[in-house]
Amino acid sequence: MEFGFVNKSNMSMVIDLYELTMAQVYFNENHNKTAVFDFFVRPTKKRPYFIFAGLEQLLYYVQNITFIQEDLDFLKSTNLFNDDFLHYLSKFKFTGNLYAFEEGEFFFANEPVVIIEAPLIEAQIIETFLINTLQIQILVATKALRCYSVANGKLLVDFGLRRAHGVDAGLKSARASYIGGFFGTSNVLAGKLFNIPIVGTIAHSFILSFESEEKAFEAFAKNYPENTVLLIDTFNTIEGAKKAVETAKKLGIKLKGVRIDSGNLLELSRKVRKILDENNFKDSIIIASGGIDEYKIKYLEENNAPINSYGVGTKLVVSADVPYLDCAYKLVQYNDRPVMKLSSKKIYLPSKKQVFRSFENEYFKEDIIGLFDERLGKPMLKHIIKDGNLVYNLPHIKEIKEKAISSLKFLPKNLKNIHNEEPYTPQISENLKEVVQRVKNLLV
Amino acid sequence: MEFGFVNKSNMSMVIDLYELTMAQVYFNENHNKTAVFDFFVRPTKKRPYFIFAGLEQLLYYVQNITFIQEDLDFLKSTNLFNDDFLHYLSKFKFTGNLYAFEEGEFFFANEPVVIIEAPLIEAQIIETFLINTLQIQILVATKALRCYSVANGKLLVDFGLRRAHGVDAGLKSARASYIGGFFGTSNVLAGKLFNIPIVGTIAHSFILSFESEEKAFEAFAKNYPENTVLLIDTFNTIEGAKKAVETAKKLGIKLKGVRIDSGNLLELSRKVRKILDENNFKDSIIIASGGIDEYKIKYLEENNAPINSYGVGTKLVVSADVPYLDCAYKLVQYNDRPVMKLSSKKIYLPSKKQVFRSFENEYFKEDIIGLFDERLGKPMLKHIIKDGNLVYNLPHIKEIKEKAISSLKFLPKNLKNIHNEEPYTPQISENLKEVVQRVKNLLV
Repeated sequence: MEFGFVNKSNMSMVIDLYELTMAQVYFNENHNKTAVFDFFVRPTKKRPYFIFAGLEQLLYYVQNITFIQEDLDFLKSTNLFNDDFLHYLSKFKFTGNLYAFEEGEFFFANEPVVIIEAPLIEAQIIETFLINTLQIQILVATKALRCYSVANGKLLVDFGLRRAHGVDAGLKSARASYIGGFFGTSNVLAGKLFNIPIVGTIAHSFILSFESEEKAFEAFAKNYPENTVLLIDTFNTIEGAKKAVETAKKLGIKLKGVRIDSGNLLELSRKVRKILDENNFKDSIIIASGGIDEYKIKYLEENNAPINSYGVGTKLVVSADVPYLDCAYKLVQYNDRPVMKLSSKKIYLPSKKQVFRSFENEYFKEDIIGLFDERLGKPMLKHIIKDGNLVYNLPHIKEIKEKAISSLKFLPKNLKNIHNEEPYTPQISENLKEVVQRVKNLLV
Repeated sequence: MEFGFVNKSNMSMVIDLYELTMAQVYFNENHNKTAVFDFFVRPTKKRPYFIFAGLEQLLYYVQNITFIQEDLDFLKSTNLFNDDFLHYLSKFKFTGNLYAFEEGEFFFANEPVVIIEAPLIEAQIIETFLINTLQIQILVATKALRCYSVANGKLLVDFGLRRAHGVDAGLKSARASYIGGFFGTSNVLAGKLFNIPIVGTIAHSFILSFESEEKAFEAFAKNYPENTVLLIDTFNTIEGAKKAVETAKKLGIKLKGVRIDSGNLLELSRKVRKILDENNFKDSIIIASGGIDEYKIKYLEENNAPINSYGVGTKLVVSADVPYLDCAYKLVQYNDRPVMKLSSKKIYLPSKKQVFRSFENEYFKEDIIGLFDERLGKPMLKHIIKDGNLVYNLPHIKEIKEKAISSLKFLPKNLKNIHNEEPYTPQISENLKEVVQRVKNLLV
């Protein structure tokens, strides 16, 4: 019986086979000069901007990747690899440079947010894992900040673990949603590993297991008198609210709150608020959950729903309206020669580059993608790993979160508008345009 | 620096906090009689049927779940749990029953495909992980079989690892797509852990790193003369095909195949086939990739595209058209009392149940959801874990795949049609209907 856990020792095998077969050819042909690869996201409908997240996990990978004997034996058994190359893998270590945006920073389509500059074999081998680790966190951090941007400061909590695509996505989503402005997560392991507040209420099964809703409420309230949040929609939400109030009165406890998980949340939250207020539970909060996303939050907030907190689950963790990014990791330079692919109409910017940001009246003005050594604004790509060594102090996750939230101060209204379908695309510097033209002319 | 790996020791912490707080209430209140929970999927547009997958990983979890001291210390630090309950957790072991469909079997909306019958605390604690582990594999196995059902026997390979939602989803997708009829995966670790053939070609970066396409082709062909599959769309697909042929002739090797990753795949595959045939490379195959899913495969096959193999990536592993299932794990019976939730219009079937399947003229006729002890056809839920012990021989993954593929022999045309938007929903037995009515009457 095999679960299939990924760990520090075998994460090197989380790789597309072709990375290794290509790497062997590079090795055999002594074709291993310095390569520059860009990781970027192509223009995506419904996502005018993105939030960068996942760098810490990527750095963990790049700093710790190793091929253990058991895995080398497996590779040998495929008959695709020779002993010299397997010996090379047994000593594998990333010795190159990594430049990246800081986590929590906003970015746009076509911008390199991570640049790898390393011997070709090393840069090639880390491709699959790099994309895998970044995509899910960018997806969820971006979706989370979209929720945050319309939530009027209401507490947002991640309830998505069960519907995340596997256990790793569950953990990454908890981390990324926290970065994107969420208050906490239901995911206990994420709380432990990433220092994120953990939260939870009760489930319908809890209510149903007791002989009556009252008995269920009493049992919970008795055991968590300081933390009594009762789920009131198992049978009838209005009756449930009344019973919650009666339970709190009977036991003499402060009712921390109630949760509504179905039905017309606008209408029900108003009626429930009235019941709570009339019974002097003005401090008891209302938590809404069930199919919540940024669109639903915006609707409820615009209609002044008396909801204090939103539990956001499935649609957050699978990024339901945009379940994948057209993201790529592309070779842009080899042995100082800028390169580009031609066959597709998709944009492709050769050469080692930098992204320059400028502001006007404290608002974001524009990003310019230029050559690495140009000076056209604030350079956004920081040197993170130099010759294989970390030269960057990883910020605390709270700082990352603050950076992400502060994006909303800088981004102009049209980019923040969650109904804006059109991505912003950055400018290209004149010097970079010349390089593009030069490379095209060489190729055509 | 924290990656956040899940392993055998800490998988118990991949859990929504409320499972544990509810469990503590059950524990304190000595409210721990036998509970029955159903896992089922609600009716889902675009998925008339589903393929069951993920049982092996679920069984691994249920058989090995344990709370280690370090995690108990973390739980204690939250101030939500008392020492008696934490002591209980330290001895936690699943002692109940698990019934399930066999992996690879087709199933329908509303059918319990896994039933847990256990002391309430145990059944509650495994909820989050159970849903998390099953959903992604059902999503991908179903999507994979949809691809297989329209592929006319062409080889399908999973290229999705980089765009899967994290490393666990990458592994589970490789396993589930193999079950759903795929030939192999690019994911090396999945190949090693799950005995799935691993496959791969080359990337655009490989081509671009050489001074010319010819040199790139030669380097690869020289190193993999028996396995030369060349990517021909980096600059111009037609020219690329010609160069691939020239390279093979020059080196005197058999050209195993070419891959086209962009452009109009129908038109390009025809032109490329012609070039290959005219040069006596009739055995060289054409692999198509780039945005492939069941809809694209069907279109290409209906137009007789001379494609021998499809590389299916992103849209498979994120199940792009249906990125999540409305799946649930619901308490249906407690201490022999059938229970159901009332507030929502969603269907909910109380009591311990069985799914009965019948056939007519070798085709699937109908499924009837009935009470556990009825006899209304072939019972689909097998006894897998009895009193905590595995009483089932796990089949080899190849047998699971064969079972999934054989679904296509049994399913009627309308259910197999990938454009069918309407889910099939099974019948409900008269006896079960009576129970539903009885429980409703008690509640209203």
